[in-house]
Amino acid sequence: MVRVGVAGATGYVGIELLRLLRGHPAARVAAVTAESNQGKPLSEVFPHTTGLYSSEGLAGGLVAGPTEAEWLADRCDVVFMALPHGAAMKLAPALLAAGKKVVDLGADFRLRSAAVYTRWYKVEHTAVDALAGAVYGLPELYGEGVAAASLVANPGCYPTSCALAAAPLLSSGLVETRGIIFDSKSGVSGAGRSPGLGVHFGEVNENLKAYSVAGEHRHTPEIEQTLSDLAGEDILVSFTPHLVPMTRGILTTAYFTLRRPATTAEVIALFTEHYHGKPFVRVRTAGLPQTKEVLGSNYCDLAPRVDERTGRVLVVSVIDNLVKGAAGQAVQNMNLMLGLDERTGLDLAPVYP
Amino acid sequence: MVRVGVAGATGYVGIELLRLLRGHPAARVAAVTAESNQGKPLSEVFPHTTGLYSSEGLAGGLVAGPTEAEWLADRCDVVFMALPHGAAMKLAPALLAAGKKVVDLGADFRLRSAAVYTRWYKVEHTAVDALAGAVYGLPELYGEGVAAASLVANPGCYPTSCALAAAPLLSSGLVETRGIIFDSKSGVSGAGRSPGLGVHFGEVNENLKAYSVAGEHRHTPEIEQTLSDLAGEDILVSFTPHLVPMTRGILTTAYFTLRRPATTAEVIALFTEHYHGKPFVRVRTAGLPQTKEVLGSNYCDLAPRVDERTGRVLVVSVIDNLVKGAAGQAVQNMNLMLGLDERTGLDLAPVYP
Amino acid sequence: MVRVGVAGATGYVGIELLRLLRGHPAARVAAVTAESNQGKPLSEVFPHTTGLYSSEGLAGGLVAGPTEAEWLADRCDVVFMALPHGAAMKLAPALLAAGKKVVDLGADFRLRSAAVYTRWYKVEHTAVDALAGAVYGLPELYGEGVAAASLVANPGCYPTSCALAAAPLLSSGLVETRGIIFDSKSGVSGAGRSPGLGVHFGEVNENLKAYSVAGEHRHTPEIEQTLSDLAGEDILVSFTPHLVPMTRGILTTAYFTLRRPATTAEVIALFTEHYHGKPFVRVRTAGLPQTKEVLGSNYCDLAPRVDERTGRVLVVSVIDNLVKGAAGQAVQNMNLMLGLDERTGLDLAPVYP
Amino acid sequence: MVRVGVAGATGYVGIELLRLLRGHPAARVAAVTAESNQGKPLSEVFPHTTGLYSSEGLAGGLVAGPTEAEWLADRCDVVFMALPHGAAMKLAPALLAAGKKVVDLGADFRLRSAAVYTRWYKVEHTAVDALAGAVYGLPELYGEGVAAASLVANPGCYPTSCALAAAPLLSSGLVETRGIIFDSKSGVSGAGRSPGLGVHFGEVNENLKAYSVAGEHRHTPEIEQTLSDLAGEDILVSFTPHLVPMTRGILTTAYFTLRRPATTAEVIALFTEHYHGKPFVRVRTAGLPQTKEVLGSNYCDLAPRVDERTGRVLVVSVIDNLVKGAAGQAVQNMNLMLGLDERTGLDLAPVYP
Repeated sequence: MVRVGVAGATGYVGIELLRLLRGHPAARVAAVTAESNQGKPLSEVFPHTTGLYSSEGLAGGLVAGPTEAEWLADRCDVVFMALPHGAAMKLAPALLAAGKKVVDLGADFRLRSAAVYTRWYKVEHTAVDALAGAVYGLPELYGEGVAAASLVANPGCYPTSCALAAAPLLSSGLVETRGIIFDSKSGVSGAGRSPGLGVHFGEVNENLKAYSVAGEHRHTPEIEQTLSDLAGEDILVSFTPHLVPMTRGILTTAYFTLRRPATTAEVIALFTEHYHGKPFVRVRTAGLPQTKEVLGSNYCDLAPRVDERTGRVLVVSVIDNLVKGAAGQAVQNMNLMLGLDERTGLDLAPVYP
Repeated sequence: MVRVGVAGATGYVGIELLRLLRGHPAARVAAVTAESNQGKPLSEVFPHTTGLYSSEGLAGGLVAGPTEAEWLADRCDVVFMALPHGAAMKLAPALLAAGKKVVDLGADFRLRSAAVYTRWYKVEHTAVDALAGAVYGLPELYGEGVAAASLVANPGCYPTSCALAAAPLLSSGLVETRGIIFDSKSGVSGAGRSPGLGVHFGEVNENLKAYSVAGEHRHTPEIEQTLSDLAGEDILVSFTPHLVPMTRGILTTAYFTLRRPATTAEVIALFTEHYHGKPFVRVRTAGLPQTKEVLGSNYCDLAPRVDERTGRVLVVSVIDNLVKGAAGQAVQNMNLMLGLDERTGLDLAPVYP
Repeated sequence: MVRVGVAGATGYVGIELLRLLRGHPAARVAAVTAESNQGKPLSEVFPHTTGLYSSEGLAGGLVAGPTEAEWLADRCDVVFMALPHGAAMKLAPALLAAGKKVVDLGADFRLRSAAVYTRWYKVEHTAVDALAGAVYGLPELYGEGVAAASLVANPGCYPTSCALAAAPLLSSGLVETRGIIFDSKSGVSGAGRSPGLGVHFGEVNENLKAYSVAGEHRHTPEIEQTLSDLAGEDILVSFTPHLVPMTRGILTTAYFTLRRPATTAEVIALFTEHYHGKPFVRVRTAGLPQTKEVLGSNYCDLAPRVDERTGRVLVVSVIDNLVKGAAGQAVQNMNLMLGLDERTGLDLAPVYP
Repeated sequence: MVRVGVAGATGYVGIELLRLLRGHPAARVAAVTAESNQGKPLSEVFPHTTGLYSSEGLAGGLVAGPTEAEWLADRCDVVFMALPHGAAMKLAPALLAAGKKVVDLGADFRLRSAAVYTRWYKVEHTAVDALAGAVYGLPELYGEGVAAASLVANPGCYPTSCALAAAPLLSSGLVETRGIIFDSKSGVSGAGRSPGLGVHFGEVNENLKAYSVAGEHRHTPEIEQTLSDLAGEDILVSFTPHLVPMTRGILTTAYFTLRRPATTAEVIALFTEHYHGKPFVRVRTAGLPQTKEVLGSNYCDLAPRVDERTGRVLVVSVIDNLVKGAAGQAVQNMNLMLGLDERTGLDLAPVYP
């Protein structure tokens, strides 16, 4: 059994990692850390885990340790980091030096350019060597690189939903590289578990808002990096995130301009071909996908539609932001890094309704 | 006091009309009709109205009568029709012939061309004379026509949010007329009160979906008609509606391509100038509007933002779909038709939170 | 026009007071205060108020001033205090000394005994003279006292829903005074606008919990004080609050044991008689009340039902916690203190759906 | 592998059974039936199941067959019936005669007395022989009977939450058998997937209501039957169901009168002892359970609290109505009937948040 550590286990992404790892046949959770809850049993922070992790062989269940490289390296073969940006780049080099596999679920290793990172995140990058060896962990696009990597940067939730919607269109050259729009809508868990007025139920419930529009959101350069890879040229996109009164789920409506006329059937065939053999992408031929149809699972469901009146192709893309948009994709990446089938431990039916 | 009738009073739009008319100083509800609830006291269908309409001088409160022109004409000076499409065009000619003012909140008189109407709604138009005299009731754009009209076609909820977002940009020529996208998100009350799997709580809650995408939604030609008026040329748009797990509210994110560089400040100034003297449009200079900020009120809040990276201008537009998107706008139209200040009875503060 | 001040205007209760006062024909908001938002225009804290209060004659709308007695006394005839407990008892004596009418929406003057107050709220009462003159502002039960008072303690939201459910039963002697249970369920706005994990959308949405059970909630002694008044003897109750994933609304299910057999019809008649002439209590004869049926209004809807199998009478009681449970009842109290009809400014139809 | 059939697979309970059975190591779904969706692939009715059941060896995934005993008996060893009441009693005798194990998730075999069944469900019982052999499938109370049964009546969702809250108190004799109250609150999925005004999002969202109060709900006699078993005498209870704006979850607040003084610690010890070795009941010693803490899992979390002021003990009980309240408990029963560990296939961590 591979011994796994989760640094930052008491946020929404951390606790979802623990849920998924519990059912993993080849891994067991050997250590968890938490800054503010250090020393507390997990079941005290999250009563819903009562009794769940006693089988890990840890008396009294999991107890949060310190977020320190040495402490983790002593206990784990693989470390997931679900930390605020800036924290992972402090931890990763020592873990890598100790020969550990590392999956970072934060932003520190997603952007290849340290300069671009600094521009968007307002901090210097202090682990440029590690950054140079990091692989962007979107397995459907970079799976081979992931399999060979020691450090994988798990994509952001929005970028996952956007890139999977765009890949078949850009890599085939069917659409213009200019004028691409991603209108994305997310549930609240994407904002994390820290309290704030922006996640107050009274402010979110029965409400809908856009935020960080017009190129202000930090996921913009990450989306553009992947799309530029796909197209083989620099691409700028319009990305508009919205906050929806639900807990889980991202739906992205992506707009592209066709270079030549095409039918919906042709584009569906293109997507089906492109994602052949990719178990977590379901190209939907009838009907449009809804976020509830992937809730709790690692699926990304996609439905492309051609609008012949305007010469556009539109793609609806849905994921569970905490699974395919975070913890599930991280486990998928770990599987590839360990030479396992990428589906291992991820055979989750959506929870419906 | 003007005697007002509401045909189709027991749907969500009808009951919202009654809420608003109750506070109107120059009008009183003299008659209501309801197909399926005929003969029932309103307070039986809607217990929340218990005691509210006894002041109308009708013993026992309002009782639903038949949806017939003669019955309404005998009792009312103005008739609001909140009926399924196809029903209003049967009723309107006789009401107009009897000298009544009519505001139709359905689709029958929104599209100037009977042929276009038939193409989208799959029924023949049987009141082409009335249609010829109908005025599209978006007061901020067609206010003078409304003031002179006997028959006003109250706009759809989505088209209201889209047209108000587009008007300053198109009438000024600042943006391209091609490639306009309206990505709209609506609460569930826009689908009406009839039960169905699509509005089942178990299917809507904690879920988000797109529907009628790629030019399939019936509000598309209505939006295009208004935008073509504004631009002075035929315009095709991409319009994508979504269903959000909330009861009230529409947020439209509108995307336009700038013809020449402009700043956000310039565009805000353009909007402010354009809507000067329009009491129900609030151009928001700081922050982005949220649906909750207009809930229960007749406001449309607008925030334009320039994305200099992509040469786009984006407008966030919010309304309460049952007020500015339906009943409130209908009362605003009635006010203009009667020569009253358009704000009469509509001075409603948003209900927050 | 009576000049009204709102101390603590930027919480949920404060902003609801402003919404209601805006439609009041005999009062105008002359001053608002806010601790953390002092110096800010109201429209900056609450963008939904943009343009709403310019008619108050204050350039740029309302600006939050300091929560100081002298500042308020200079500007107002009546002061509403929507402050954390402990703050109102510091402010009230000076306002009363200056001849002002005061309505406190917090807990400082609700419990007649300073000792009981200290036991539950863990602070000394520093305004025992003011406390001695305070009247408990549940107008349906203490209306005459309110009319004569200078200082009114506006009841808590839960106690309002409980006391109105119990009053006809206890004052008639129909039920036992022992064994009374109030199982209450509240929307989240009752917890106020301050952020915290307990009001985080991710924790509240799709969730239901009980809290402060088994006599731990501070509203328990307040409920018992009123019920003891009604029964003429000391009463202890079981009060269990729950948090429901909705923004507004309280539903209390109250359980009583009949002293002698009675039918539902008899009990409904008793309630109808008891609340004759009380415009804000609607005794529902058919169907059971729902919170949505009073949302945004000052109504308390009540439905008693006899369970002949168990010899119990059960009462379902619903209010909007921010209106009849706070701001609306405060305006009702002000009306009585000023000799106005208690309905003035409160003729609000519920917002449905 | 045991071949399992699900009759009535396209309701909320049916689809949850399929989710759970998919992870069961000793069973595979061999047949599904659906009245209204007969002949349709499951993935057409529920797109979220796309690709999930191809591993069942059925080309194109599961296709709904007819709800007929012979068709099911040919294909299955065990049959789950998730049907409207009245339908299961038509199907069960033939399945039993064919030697099948049967778990009925409806009401037909829950009440031991056919006369009581008829009084509450208004239909004659046509399978009294099968009824005589049926075992009430609450494994924590009737586990031995379940293990020996061919026909198990899976309890209702409310009764499960109530009976588990009451069992330690009644079987120990600590509380009075009179005056017991269950104030239960349920999410909407308990009402099933059929559309109706009562489950319309616009009517349920931001709303709370009680229904079928004062002994009118059909789960009342079922609760009383189990409690009478526990106490050894006939018991009448007050049971009040409420509808909460959430999809899944039941929270029951149960009120009992102590026969002698006891502390919370003593009562927690009593519960812990009583449920020793019962893997799906978690007695919570700190904090109160919330419905979200069991969502998607088969747990029932319980927290008893003594109110020394009133001499009462209150128990908060939470389940996921579709899992421990229906499909999960049914699988637990199947496990016992097959001689498997009751946890088989049910080791599900709650989905949080």
